[in-house]
Formats: sequence, C-alpha cells, structure tokens
Amino acid sequence: MFAVEKNLTELIEEIQELLSQKNLGEIRSKLIAMNPYDIAELFEEMDFEEDKVPLLFRLLPKELAAETFVEMDDDTQKVLINSFSDSELKEIIDELYLDDAVGILEEMPANVVKRILRQTDSETRLILNELLNYPSDSAGSMMTPEFVTLRPKMTVEEAIKRIRRTGVDKETIYTCYVTNNNKTLIGVVTIKTLILAEDDAIVEELMESNVISVRTTDDQENVAQMFNNYNFLALPVVDTENRLVGIVTIDDAIDVLEEEATEDIQKMAAISPSDKPYFKLGILEAFKIRTPWLLFLMISATFTGMIINNAETSLAALPFLTAYIPMLMNTGGSAGSQASVTIIRAISLGEVSFFDILKIAFKESRIALCCGVALAVCNFAKMMLFDNMVMHNSSITPMVAAVVCLTLVFNVLFAKVIGCCLPLIAKKFGADPAVMATPFISTIVDAITLTIYFTIATVLLVN
Amino acid sequence: MFAVEKNLTELIEEIQELLSQKNLGEIRSKLIAMNPYDIAELFEEMDFEEDKVPLLFRLLPKELAAETFVEMDDDTQKVLINSFSDSELKEIIDELYLDDAVGILEEMPANVVKRILRQTDSETRLILNELLNYPSDSAGSMMTPEFVTLRPKMTVEEAIKRIRRTGVDKETIYTCYVTNNNKTLIGVVTIKTLILAEDDAIVEELMESNVISVRTTDDQENVAQMFNNYNFLALPVVDTENRLVGIVTIDDAIDVLEEEATEDIQKMAAISPSDKPYFKLGILEAFKIRTPWLLFLMISATFTGMIINNAETSLAALPFLTAYIPMLMNTGGSAGSQASVTIIRAISLGEVSFFDILKIAFKESRIALCCGVALAVCNFAKMMLFDNMVMHNSSITPMVAAVVCLTLVFNVLFAKVIGCCLPLIAKKFGADPAVMATPFISTIVDAITLTIYFTIATVLLVN
Repeated sequence: MFAVEKNLTELIEEIQELLSQKNLGEIRSKLIAMNPYDIAELFEEMDFEEDKVPLLFRLLPKELAAETFVEMDDDTQKVLINSFSDSELKEIIDELYLDDAVGILEEMPANVVKRILRQTDSETRLILNELLNYPSDSAGSMMTPEFVTLRPKMTVEEAIKRIRRTGVDKETIYTCYVTNNNKTLIGVVTIKTLILAEDDAIVEELMESNVISVRTTDDQENVAQMFNNYNFLALPVVDTENRLVGIVTIDDAIDVLEEEATEDIQKMAAISPSDKPYFKLGILEAFKIRTPWLLFLMISATFTGMIINNAETSLAALPFLTAYIPMLMNTGGSAGSQASVTIIRAISLGEVSFFDILKIAFKESRIALCCGVALAVCNFAKMMLFDNMVMHNSSITPMVAAVVCLTLVFNVLFAKVIGCCLPLIAKKFGADPAVMATPFISTIVDAITLTIYFTIATVLLVN
Repeated sequence: MFAVEKNLTELIEEIQELLSQKNLGEIRSKLIAMNPYDIAELFEEMDFEEDKVPLLFRLLPKELAAETFVEMDDDTQKVLINSFSDSELKEIIDELYLDDAVGILEEMPANVVKRILRQTDSETRLILNELLNYPSDSAGSMMTPEFVTLRPKMTVEEAIKRIRRTGVDKETIYTCYVTNNNKTLIGVVTIKTLILAEDDAIVEELMESNVISVRTTDDQENVAQMFNNYNFLALPVVDTENRLVGIVTIDDAIDVLEEEATEDIQKMAAISPSDKPYFKLGILEAFKIRTPWLLFLMISATFTGMIINNAETSLAALPFLTAYIPMLMNTGGSAGSQASVTIIRAISLGEVSFFDILKIAFKESRIALCCGVALAVCNFAKMMLFDNMVMHNSSITPMVAAVVCLTLVFNVLFAKVIGCCLPLIAKKFGADPAVMATPFISTIVDAITLTIYFTIATVLLVN
C-alpha cells in the first residue's frame, strides 16, 4: 500500500459517511491500518469539524494514539488536550517518549503545561522539568533519557537478555551504550554487532570505544549536522563529566535539518522564521513575519534616493544614464546574493569558517572579475548594437557604454566581496549569517553601485 | 572522544611528523581509532601531497578502507583509483555496499567505470549495470538490493537465525522484509519487534502488513521527504508488480534532503546547482554556474530601461520621481521573493500543490494588502516628515507622496501574487519551481513597478 496523502480528500469523505452512519467500528479498522503521520494529516484536515477529532482520536489504541499525537500540529494537539479528561491525558503522556513530550510541552501555553505535568508521576515530572530547563535549541532539549545501557563485562547472551527486558520503553535499541559504575560512557555497540556475534563474546571486546558524543549544551544544528556527516542512527549526549545523560535519535535530527534549512531560506528571503506549514499560518502572522524586513529595506532605500538626488544636478545633462540604473542595481544585487547565499550555505554545512575569510574573499574577487568582465563585454555589445543602432539612441556613444560597463565590473567585484564577507563576519560576532542575504546585501550594494556609477560618469562624461 | 574536525590541522601535522619518521605503525593506530568520515576529511585536506594519500589509505583495514572511500569526494577517489592495482581495486569494490558503489560509479569517467566493472564478479556486475540504468534522481539509483528477507510462517527463533546467517553483508538488519514465493512484499518487521517477542511467535503475526513502499521510478526527493514524514529507517522499493527489488536507507535519504535544500537555495540565488563543497569548486566552475543567470538578468533589464526612457519625456518636469525608483523596485522585488520563496519551500515539503493556486493567490493578496498599506502609511509619514521637512525638499508635496505610496500598495500586491503563482505554474508544467525565485521574479516585478509608477504619476501629477 502506498502513502495515503493522495487520496486524503476521498478518505475524509468516506469517514464522514461512516460517521453519519455511526459506524465507528469500520472507521477504527480504517485508522488502525494507517501510519500515525497519515492519521495526523487526516485529523488536521478535518479540523473544520473540531468536535469530531476527539471522537475519532478515542478510537485509536493507546500506542497508536500517542504516536499520532506526536505527529499533529500544536493547534490540533491543543484541541485534543482541552477535550481530554485527566485520566485520558495521563494515558497519552505515559505512552510518549520523553523527548517527544518535551517537544510538545515547549509549544504549549503555561496553563496546559501545568495540567500535563500534574498528570505525570513524580519521577517523570522531575525528568521532564530537567529536560525543559535546557535551551530549546540545545542537544539537551532534543535528547531522550530512554536508552539501553550495557556493562563492559557482559556476554552477548546477557546483553541481549537485558535488551529484551528493558528495551520495550526505549526510543531505540539499535545502538546500545556501554557505561561503567559512574555512568561514564565508555563505548557503544550496535545490536547488529551483538546479533551477529557469538553468544559468549564479551561486550567490551565488541564495542567501539572511540565514541563520538555531544554535550547537553551543544547547538542542535551542529548535532544534526553530525548525523548528516557520520551516518549515525543515534548520538550519545554527555554532561561535563562525560556521564551519559541522554541520546539524540536520527528522526529528530532530520526534523532539525529540515527546520534549519527552511529557516535559512526564509531569512534569505527577508522573512522572519516560522515553523508553521503554509496553510496553518494566519494572514496576520504572515503579515508580522514579512513586514518588518520590508519596512527596514524601504527606509534604508532613503540613502540610494539621496545619492540619486545629489547626482541629479551634476548629471542633469545626461538623463539617459537613469535608464541603466535598474540593470546595474539588479546585477549588483544578484551577484552579491550569489556570493552571500553560497557562503551562508557553506557555513551551515560546516564547510567554511571565519578564519577562511581572506581565502574566500580572494577566491570571490577572482570569480567576480571573470563574471564582471564577461558581463561588461556582453553589455558593451548590447548597448552599441541594440540601444544605439536598433533603437537609434544617439546619446549612447562608446564612451557612455564604457561608463556603464566599467561600473558593471566594479559593481560585481564589490558585490561579491561584500556578499561573501558579511555572513562570515556575522557568524564571528554571534549574529545569524542567513540574515546577510539578498535584501540586506542589495541595500548596501545599491548604494555602492550608484556611487560608483555617478563617480565614473562625472569623471568620464561631464568634463 | 569528540569529533576530530576541530583539530584537523594538528592531526595533519602529527601525521606528517610520523611520516617523516617512517613510523607507519603509529599512524595506523591513529587512523583505526577514527571515524571513516574524519579519515576522509583528513585525506582530502592532505591532497596537496597526492602521493601520500594512497600510502596512508593502504594502512587501513579492508572494511574501514571501504567505508572511508565512500566518504571521500570524487577527486580524492579518482587519485586513489588511479594508484590502485587491479586486485586492490577489487578488494575495495567487494567491500562496498552496492548503492554506494553505484553512487561512486555515477560520478566517475567512463574509462574508470569500465575498469571498476571489470574487477567485479559477473553477478555483481549484472546488478550494478541494472542499478546504473535507473535515472540518477530515482529511487532505483538510491536503493541497495542488500536487504534481509523473511518468510511469513517463520518463528522468531528461525527469523533471528536467518538474520544471523545472512545479515553480515546487508546494509541494514533493523528492518526485515517479509516476502512470499513470488518475492512480493507482504510485510515488514523490525528487529526490535523480533527481539522483544517470544521465540515461538510467528513472523506473520508480528509484521506490519500495511507497508508503505516506493517504486523504482519515484523521484528521489519525494522518497527522501517520506523519511522526513514517517520516521522510517529504511523504505522498501518495489517494481511494477509489487515485487521487492531494493531498499533505500535513511543515511542516503538525509544526503538527498541536504542536496535538494542546497540546490533549491542555489537556484533561489540565481546559481546553477553544483554539489561540490565551496573550496573544491574551481574559479572557472564557479564562473560557469553563476554567469548565465546574471547575463540573463542583465539583458532582461533592457525592458525596465526602455520603460524609463519612454517615461522620461512625459515626466521631464518631475525629475525628483527618479529618486524613489530604487526603493520601489527593491520593495517590490523583496515582497515578491518573500511570496515565491515561501511557496517554493512549501512545494518542496509537500505542503501545497498546483490545485491550491487560487486559495494561495487569495491568501497572498490579503497578506499583500496588509503589508502594502502598512508600508504606504510609513512611507507617507517618512516622505512628509523627512524628505519634505527635514531635507527641505519642497517638490515633495502630499500629492507626490500619495503617488509613491499608491504605487507601493499595487506594487506589493502584484509582486506577491506573481511571486506565489509562478512557482506553482512552473511545477505544473514540469519546470523547476526554485528557478522562479528572487532574480527572476524581480525582473518581472521591476517592469510592472515602473509601469504602475509612471502611469499613476502621469495621471495624478502631469495634468
């Protein structure tokens, strides 16, 4: 059977039909056959009938209900939590993995968090409170304390017995962690290694003792990037004394990688980040995340306006120069954003750091010179053949074309060097490199472009 | 121990020191303690001494050598392949998982591919040739035929025995596939389920029979997105008759997700996609992937130039209008790119499709009106208070400010509607939505902005 998405509308109709017939048994068997993600999609699509969702949710067996709950968006989760009795709420919370519970609690309003915590036993509440204390973008808040530990002297047979006994509630049993009496992490062993080994082999001899681990305070983006590099299914998280306190699993790492890519893309397009899917984001919310940057760009364009106003008097005799302003500004902006976006992505993927700045600026200037000269040559040809000859614009002399083309070369050069340096400098000073993309760069590049243009024009044409 | 990256330079120095002392034993024990990804990084960094890399590579045990080989970039792989004897090459190829071998072969020049295929036994060669025949962006080219199959009537004990017997060479043993006599996929069961079950339980009763699978011809981006949605570790790939032919594992899915995000980001910044890391991309290559779009944008700006030229005669009396052109163009371009980038990302994440186009356009126009009006109000205040009063520019009357502000409102409206529709239309006609981002959008929006501006100015100011 294939992913259900395609026939979601069909499925909703079927379920509405069954609901009107009160045939809950049939609905239940349909739901049980589905993947939690698809059930969550279904419930979200049905949110126009809010009272139906809790009814349908109650049809799910406990484990599937918890798995579905995790996949739903905040709004649907809130609707459900509000409709739950305390004992229903407790049942769901008990079924959740602790990292998922933390993820949900982080998104809920304070009164709901209180209500949820009241339903958990004191031990779980203690752990949840501890996890909630980590900054929300740290490894600590991504991790779960539900992992399998083994002792170094165990045989494979004992290890597998232990996994069978303790594994049910663990988020993963595929990577097992070997700790000593102080809970210090001394090795990892995969269940593949254990299963393929002899029953009487010793864990210590099978385990990988050069363990790559992260700290609770490490940035979640770096942690996620390590999954990308190292092909792990889980990464151990240790405290400052190298004691194992949790693990991060690959499903959460993928979510972080996708979220961070989306955030970077949003920032590059002058949008404040939001993790809501398109149709879940209200008009007002969209307004709020998009307008501030537009406003900033609009106001900062005052400078370009002032540069043009200042130049106007000295260049009043050359009005045809105005027609090339949009082309020069766009080319500069695009050339700059090519460099900045390339570097922003390279920073995200861990390919470059601030210390490479000179090497990068040198590389970008060489690229810029190639680009700039190629563009200038094409533009010179275009201005003489099209603007001058085809359009019969006799103001476009070779000297005028030379002014525009010379501006292009400097323009691309400045744009690319500024474009590659700003994200690195931002990163160095703890600011977000992704903000240094297109719109921000183009504001600076525009001002430089116009200044270069008018200066060259004054020198070469006015005298 | 933590990831080695930070001290890469230190490590290289140590190894060079040991090399000069000919202390290969010490180098070997250093390398063995490292992760394949880190060894590959090390070798790539050392590529200025090409002859050293094959020497170091030969120190690695067979399995680690193969794992390291997979992690290296094409260039380093080529250097090594050229230095290998035929028997060394055969040893490495035999150790590789087949999907990794395909990934490497796809990047190699034809003569190297021939040489590699000559070293494989006829059965492997047949499989490799088959896998190489799938389009390089399909599930078929991502998959590996090395998976564990079980039969429905097996007991757990028999199943685990089978996994122990056949699991060594499989890419994953964590998800096992249950097939019938025709190789038709009838269920999946995780090793977690098997290990936690009783020895005499029957596979058929434990397996999940609503299997989500993909076809060999499915697009790799969609396949990777399914991992993101469903939290799978592996996905089965079936042929048109639902026979199981391979599996895609999560490590490859993450690579595809990262690659696709990078490609989208590059296209949004008017760069032709390239999967090379920043420092591996030559000046000439960077020139080639960046210049075509800049050239296209430069030439297409001819239209905006023509619009300005045409308006010049009728607006000769109003030269101060020119100063607002950069602001209007930038605001329009940014507003449009906010919408287009939002929709491009939503398409990539599977949140929206072409059929939503009216709903999206309606939503975007409401957002645009809110944004446009807010910007217009601020701009009116800025023009009257700053441009008129502070700068003493008496040409800026309330009517002039009204012209600029009215243009802003229409400008943002058109920009956002065009910005959201173009990627959806591109997708519909099989083109790449990501190309419909900032630079392309701004070319169109610029022309519209100027036309609106000059039209409103002519109507309200010239008469």
